[in-house]
Amino acid sequence: MIPTAPSPARLRPTPTVPPDAAPGRWPASRASPRPAESPARLLASPARAPATLLALASAVLLAGRPASADEGMWMPQQIPDLAPRLRKLGFEGDPGAFADLAGHPMGAVVSLGGCSASFVSPDGLVVTNHHCVTGALQFNSAPERNLIKDGFLAATRAEELWNGPGSRVYVTVAARDVTKEVAGSLDAKLSDLQRGEAIEKREKELTAACEREGLRCRVASYFQGLRWYEIAQLELKDVRLVYAPPSFVGNYGGETDNWRWPRHGGDFAFLRAWVGRDGRPAAHARDNVPYRPRHWLKVSTAGASPGGFVIVAGYPGRTARHQTLRETRDALEWAYPRQVRQMKEMLAILAELSRASKETEIRVAARVRGLANAMKNRQGVLEGARKGRLVERKAAAETDLAAWIRADAARAARYGTVLASLDEVQARKEATRERDAAYRGLYARDSLLSSARTARRLAEERARPDAERDPEYQQRNWERIREGQERMQKALDLAADRALLRHSLLEVAALPPGQRIPALDAAVGLAAGVPADEAGRKVDAWLDALYRGTRLADQSFRVGLLDAPTESVLAEADAFLQVAALLAPLDKELRDAEKERAGALARLGPVYMAAAIEKAGGPVAPDANSTLRVTFGTVKGVSPEDGVLYLPQTRLAGVLAKHRPGDKEFGLSPRMVEAIERSLASPRGPWRDARLGDVPVDFLSDVDTTGGNSGSAVLDGRGELVGLLFDGTYETIASDFLFDPERTRSIQVDIRYVLWVAAELSGASHVLREMGIDAPATGRVSSGEGRPAAAAPPGRPGS
Amino acid sequence: MIPTAPSPARLRPTPTVPPDAAPGRWPASRASPRPAESPARLLASPARAPATLLALASAVLLAGRPASADEGMWMPQQIPDLAPRLRKLGFEGDPGAFADLAGHPMGAVVSLGGCSASFVSPDGLVVTNHHCVTGALQFNSAPERNLIKDGFLAATRAEELWNGPGSRVYVTVAARDVTKEVAGSLDAKLSDLQRGEAIEKREKELTAACEREGLRCRVASYFQGLRWYEIAQLELKDVRLVYAPPSFVGNYGGETDNWRWPRHGGDFAFLRAWVGRDGRPAAHARDNVPYRPRHWLKVSTAGASPGGFVIVAGYPGRTARHQTLRETRDALEWAYPRQVRQMKEMLAILAELSRASKETEIRVAARVRGLANAMKNRQGVLEGARKGRLVERKAAAETDLAAWIRADAARAARYGTVLASLDEVQARKEATRERDAAYRGLYARDSLLSSARTARRLAEERARPDAERDPEYQQRNWERIREGQERMQKALDLAADRALLRHSLLEVAALPPGQRIPALDAAVGLAAGVPADEAGRKVDAWLDALYRGTRLADQSFRVGLLDAPTESVLAEADAFLQVAALLAPLDKELRDAEKERAGALARLGPVYMAAAIEKAGGPVAPDANSTLRVTFGTVKGVSPEDGVLYLPQTRLAGVLAKHRPGDKEFGLSPRMVEAIERSLASPRGPWRDARLGDVPVDFLSDVDTTGGNSGSAVLDGRGELVGLLFDGTYETIASDFLFDPERTRSIQVDIRYVLWVAAELSGASHVLREMGIDAPATGRVSSGEGRPAAAAPPGRPGS
Repeated sequence: MIPTAPSPARLRPTPTVPPDAAPGRWPASRASPRPAESPARLLASPARAPATLLALASAVLLAGRPASADEGMWMPQQIPDLAPRLRKLGFEGDPGAFADLAGHPMGAVVSLGGCSASFVSPDGLVVTNHHCVTGALQFNSAPERNLIKDGFLAATRAEELWNGPGSRVYVTVAARDVTKEVAGSLDAKLSDLQRGEAIEKREKELTAACEREGLRCRVASYFQGLRWYEIAQLELKDVRLVYAPPSFVGNYGGETDNWRWPRHGGDFAFLRAWVGRDGRPAAHARDNVPYRPRHWLKVSTAGASPGGFVIVAGYPGRTARHQTLRETRDALEWAYPRQVRQMKEMLAILAELSRASKETEIRVAARVRGLANAMKNRQGVLEGARKGRLVERKAAAETDLAAWIRADAARAARYGTVLASLDEVQARKEATRERDAAYRGLYARDSLLSSARTARRLAEERARPDAERDPEYQQRNWERIREGQERMQKALDLAADRALLRHSLLEVAALPPGQRIPALDAAVGLAAGVPADEAGRKVDAWLDALYRGTRLADQSFRVGLLDAPTESVLAEADAFLQVAALLAPLDKELRDAEKERAGALARLGPVYMAAAIEKAGGPVAPDANSTLRVTFGTVKGVSPEDGVLYLPQTRLAGVLAKHRPGDKEFGLSPRMVEAIERSLASPRGPWRDARLGDVPVDFLSDVDTTGGNSGSAVLDGRGELVGLLFDGTYETIASDFLFDPERTRSIQVDIRYVLWVAAELSGASHVLREMGIDAPATGRVSSGEGRPAAAAPPGRPGS
Repeated sequence: MIPTAPSPARLRPTPTVPPDAAPGRWPASRASPRPAESPARLLASPARAPATLLALASAVLLAGRPASADEGMWMPQQIPDLAPRLRKLGFEGDPGAFADLAGHPMGAVVSLGGCSASFVSPDGLVVTNHHCVTGALQFNSAPERNLIKDGFLAATRAEELWNGPGSRVYVTVAARDVTKEVAGSLDAKLSDLQRGEAIEKREKELTAACEREGLRCRVASYFQGLRWYEIAQLELKDVRLVYAPPSFVGNYGGETDNWRWPRHGGDFAFLRAWVGRDGRPAAHARDNVPYRPRHWLKVSTAGASPGGFVIVAGYPGRTARHQTLRETRDALEWAYPRQVRQMKEMLAILAELSRASKETEIRVAARVRGLANAMKNRQGVLEGARKGRLVERKAAAETDLAAWIRADAARAARYGTVLASLDEVQARKEATRERDAAYRGLYARDSLLSSARTARRLAEERARPDAERDPEYQQRNWERIREGQERMQKALDLAADRALLRHSLLEVAALPPGQRIPALDAAVGLAAGVPADEAGRKVDAWLDALYRGTRLADQSFRVGLLDAPTESVLAEADAFLQVAALLAPLDKELRDAEKERAGALARLGPVYMAAAIEKAGGPVAPDANSTLRVTFGTVKGVSPEDGVLYLPQTRLAGVLAKHRPGDKEFGLSPRMVEAIERSLASPRGPWRDARLGDVPVDFLSDVDTTGGNSGSAVLDGRGELVGLLFDGTYETIASDFLFDPERTRSIQVDIRYVLWVAAELSGASHVLREMGIDAPATGRVSSGEGRPAAAAPPGRPGS
């Protein structure tokens, strides 16, 4: 989606963000703070005291001193050691339970790939964010049936709608420490490229040994390669839509309110995982049955209150707090400003095309939302970094670390040169960053050029034994590659495809002399210093020929290439495949450079991290890596700047106050207005908060989350589900690079608003009953009760 | 400045906003909520029980029941009747004192014409807002000496800089009820036009009788013409700049923070009024002496605290709370949206010209600031009106009033038809509103076409006896007309002049068939339905000839016209004067229509207002009319929307947090940064608020103010000056149409920040001493003390 960022799956056996993940607020890949690539940092230098490092890591990871403030996307295994802090904040359960990933409550917390979710019934009912099901809503929409706008409610299980290809529920069933298997006994004399390849090979071997029918495995790096875990996940492939509110609930406030407080979004939706009659994962099929999870969460009717304890479990995507100063500056001073500029231009292009054609507007809507979201994220990071003097603080911390290393002879021996060496690795990356970014920018997600590259790469790799293939193209990924190519049809718009490719080509045309892409220069007729208008004309002429000469927009041709014999794909005359062939050598060069960099970081990352952990002297949470994490804290407001206070909760009255009839972002339906007015007028209505004098809508907490946490379960001190996390405040975003305990706040929807909407607006009392909630028992008879579920027209829950 | 709004001086003998008033935040004419014109509503129907009305008015105006919340820009004469409310809120002085306009404290409160101010020393030192002296700073600036940016500090009185022509300090010395003289015994058979003319004549007679050397009088309408007062003001003409901080203090946050909270502006400046050696008002002259006022305010060193009482005295410009629903809808649904669109286009034009030329940028800077401010004001009104459902509430109130009138036979007899009649008058106005607005749009302030009309009108009127002249062109206004024409030279930019006139002509070109301006159609070659690009070409060709054929940009020619014989001006071949001649008949038509409307409203306004007052059953404040008013309330924060709280104070630390090095709006000087850091580090520094742990900067209060209140003195319960009012929050602006007691907040700079800046940044301790403030005595020795005043280079107080 962010065309300048390469696939996050590189060097990771399991892409955790399927290419069709819905764009949204706090999704994983969108908020990825590592702009260019995230090679795993592999521990690979046994000569440099790996035993010491491992021992040290074990010691510090399990140490008991609680961290200051509530920074920390903790590995569940670390939670028992944080018990005193949890108890102090108000947790009443057994902290030890978190360490069992297959037990309660962690066994109920699932990943959708890019979003988090949780089971809330014994029949596989899953609750997540509305913005995490945008793709499913789009897949089931038609011109006369706009589910994104109107929402959807299945009156019976038979009416539940398949989410479409690629939609998944991943249930983590095991995590095993494989640090020795991945990083142990590597020859110190290996070159960086060899080391990178060796580690990739070991990851593939472990993954192959772990996976079996219905089980998806990955090997994940923690603490920059200081530790490695093998994670096994049940992969449920038949996911169906149960209930999504209209967009004026699920996406209330739209782009305007995105990342902002005060917030009034009801960002929730319900799915159900289905399996074969034998209870095992199966492809979507008519006679499948609901999955019966071993654990599901109890839904609270009390919600969250200011000062109350909350613990959040989910799959945060990526943070970059354990980066060096130089890496941070590359991101904040070069990559992010560049991306903001690019995305602004791309949004302008798509806006113009959308004005010209209604169909284009629909097809590019999700992309626009994703781009706008990503742009705002980066702007937020930059603004937060500026206001929080992030680079200065990072510099001070690094100066501090260097001084601490120098101050002790043993430390100097262990860690002495690591900072300088990391800077050298980073400098090599920066030497070609303009070219690399421009090159990667050519492959927009779901674009024809991207499809051409995929087809060609797959054809090449298929010719090799599976164990020797690039992990991304191993057989285990073929199905999702196919699903991606099928699914892109709905979002494919030739005018937009061409306009965005043109935009990227103009960036290539403007590259400085030392960083040209000769293959494209020759093909298009470009050269350094050619004036922009001349370059534009040449690009246009080239694109004319390209789009005339391709059949890739034809789904059967495009998908057919994925099964075609290698030679026929490599010989294919389609114009886009020819371009892919032209660029193949540079593509290989960049992959090798990345692998080499990964090998270098595998030498250095663990040393750096070990130094940082030893210096911290207490528990340290690893950077997020799309694996299951737990964070906890308190429901509370914040002063985002001098003179202002964000209150910890918003109310139904606030939803109404933002209402603008007919507005795309703030336009409520008459029925919703009526439901709110009725609720405001009845002082003892259900799910009302007595202290607040209203039904609570969203709330703030100081838990530590990031993209990928969208849809995370928010539990109270008794382990009951009191809300769903769906965003962070604007002032929070820069915490991806350096945690700010003062200003960081996550945004959650209170479960009482979910229940209120379901009962009072949508008449979804059967969904509530499945979760054990009997609407009338919580207060006065709700009007939802008076309306049988069938009275709500299917597919329009309350518009 | 707002080209679509006619001169607010129409039918008002004293223009209270000189045409060169600095644009700014809360200035009078900019924030004028009456978009098209504000004819006085004259009481002129003795047959319709004027005695009853007058008696009624007297009764209700003086009734004792306090208003709910703190709405009310009260006439000082009403304050004694509000004593219980004042006492309850914390006022410790004698409420009766306010009724004496020439006594203390009202005698110290002055008008600058569009801004408010007050005396703070026995030597005529005046404190007001920084944005009220922009014109004076511009007048004294040169390319190598930018006082707007760098500020100014006179080390001695000899160094004080004349503000330039047109700059005034008005000291109110008397107010006399002249209701009978203006509105009594008018023949009921007069036509509306005759009635309008009759009242204008009486106003002129009263004014002529009141004025003498150095004294300026006006007759002002209150309560839609139910009451009239003759106001006499001393007119001090030699006003000089004493001290203005740099723009990063005085205009900190610029357009971004304008109308917003949280705020960190130090919007203050000091002037001095000078008079002739005989102590009487005199033109600027070298041997003038400082004016010695009879009253001046005592400056507090304690500032304002949350919950504390404040009373604000100043000259609010215009509100429209006592309008009918139809008038309100005309403003909110037609005029304001139109103006926002127009101003946005004009700002775009000026931005483009400013990018092209540095000189243009400087010349149009004040106009840009004024336009941006006015646009934001109107947007704020519209947004506030929408959020506060203003039109619905207004409609409900009018329905209520109508029902109340109908419910009683006597009331029905008194007030029965007034609402319907007012709607008829309004309907007549709306019939030609597109044409009228487009026509008025042609005369941008300080434009060549406007100068041409002024010259022509003055020539016409000069030929008549003074008593028969249009009030605007009576001899008493000649000097300020001349000053306006002199002063405009600095802001005159031919490219901008032409571009804005072109913009207005294109609007004229697009007028609908029934509302064309035939004189212009014939001259330019326009007609209804001509395509925009064709109209553009014709307008361009016409403008080519126009600008080729004029000498009006030459100051001596332009000013010379004001003294030239009538016949020679009327015969003048200058192209712009020819256009003025062409448009003279329509100009007259519009003036007559306005006078007729004024006559109609003179029949109806007092009846409407008497009904409203009788129904209210308690004291009612009249709409603002640029006369001296008093409002009071409490220092307190506000929840502008669900989920957010504005805290009542901001701090020095917040100034630093907003700092962006080099930024036009938020860039502090290194010296300022250093001064703040020093202050933050010293826990017992001067003017620190112990509870806040910092020096307070700005504060919120719930007093009721509007444009024109800029610079108003803010007094505490003991009558000491604790701050200067300079703005309202964005949520407040719509209160000009309907007061919202929940959300309305004014923004003030705390006097402690003024003192801190003067001492710690500018080394202006001699200014503080003149106000009786001894800097070192308030805390530790301030660094300002260590730096003698002379050490601060004159003209650069702390940049």
